[in-house]
Amino acid sequence: MIILGIDPGLRTTGFGVIHQQGAKLRYIASGTIKSGEGDLPTRLKVILDGVGQVASQYQPDCAAIEQVFVNVNPQSTLLLGQARGAAICALVTAELAVAEYSPTQVKQAVVGTGRAVKAQVQAMVARLLALPGLPGTDAADALGVAICHAHSRETLTLIAGASAASATVAAAGLPGPLAGLRLRRGRLVG
Amino acid sequence: MIILGIDPGLRTTGFGVIHQQGAKLRYIASGTIKSGEGDLPTRLKVILDGVGQVASQYQPDCAAIEQVFVNVNPQSTLLLGQARGAAICALVTAELAVAEYSPTQVKQAVVGTGRAVKAQVQAMVARLLALPGLPGTDAADALGVAICHAHSRETLTLIAGASAASATVAAAGLPGPLAGLRLRRGRLVG
Repeated sequence: MIILGIDPGLRTTGFGVIHQQGAKLRYIASGTIKSGEGDLPTRLKVILDGVGQVASQYQPDCAAIEQVFVNVNPQSTLLLGQARGAAICALVTAELAVAEYSPTQVKQAVVGTGRAVKAQVQAMVARLLALPGLPGTDAADALGVAICHAHSRETLTLIAGASAASATVAAAGLPGPLAGLRLRRGRLVG
Repeated sequence: MIILGIDPGLRTTGFGVIHQQGAKLRYIASGTIKSGEGDLPTRLKVILDGVGQVASQYQPDCAAIEQVFVNVNPQSTLLLGQARGAAICALVTAELAVAEYSPTQVKQAVVGTGRAVKAQVQAMVARLLALPGLPGTDAADALGVAICHAHSRETLTLIAGASAASATVAAAGLPGPLAGLRLRRGRLVG
């Protein structure tokens, strides 16, 4: 399963591509798309074409995109929204299912705390994917959202398995193994 | 010259297509694209595909899109921004130059005052395009932005002509005819 993660921005859009096999993650590629200095429609086209090109080159099976913070400046929020809209358009045009995660969810999945700072995300992304050096912040965030999606998928698979087991047990009139389960760092813990 | 006007929205995107020949405007088509009740990526895809389909069906020469008000609710501003981004992506994908106008500019061009209410825009759009009845508000706004662009183009053509004449006169050491020119309702007045 190949996952494409996107960290959207009007100026710089980060992307990260990873391969997931069970709990094993492997780095494939990452980078940034710079929208340049043109007018808004031109910059949105750069994002649309750039994300489309990444999708076409790495042929991911699914995509995940970071939710964005609303800015104190409403005009900036509007611009960021348009950039994010362009990135999502590229993903749906490539017929990819698009999952969305908040920055807190990404930090939680990668670092283990929703309050992690950017440097911690960079360091943990590099460690989880066995990178030789630190990725840039935009690429790290994009790889982070891909990792977050990988953990979330793995959790869903585990829950599905546990539910099936639970259903069997419940049918026998016994308490199911899902009682008291908690989610931590995107993995099921007892 | 065929002009496509777009009034973007997350729920409803209005479109209007007009034909311009000099000062003469003719109605071609208008309508709305409803994005439905799906998740955000699905709704953005409906907008992207819908605007793309309109562009492909009516083969406009250029496009104009209304600027959007930033909402008091930043989350709504963000959603609206993403919808507008999807509409612009469809236009640039169709290789159309995209002009942007504020609601005030549209009202000024259509009604003659930037403070016009929606009903006035509907009535004036119906009158300027000799429609048999009132268009819906979203379609009226989209036709309004197309009319605004038509007026703006006509003005630019007139200014270009006047500037050429002015340059000739100035070369002869006489006061140019552009002195004291004012812009009113998108047309040059003396």
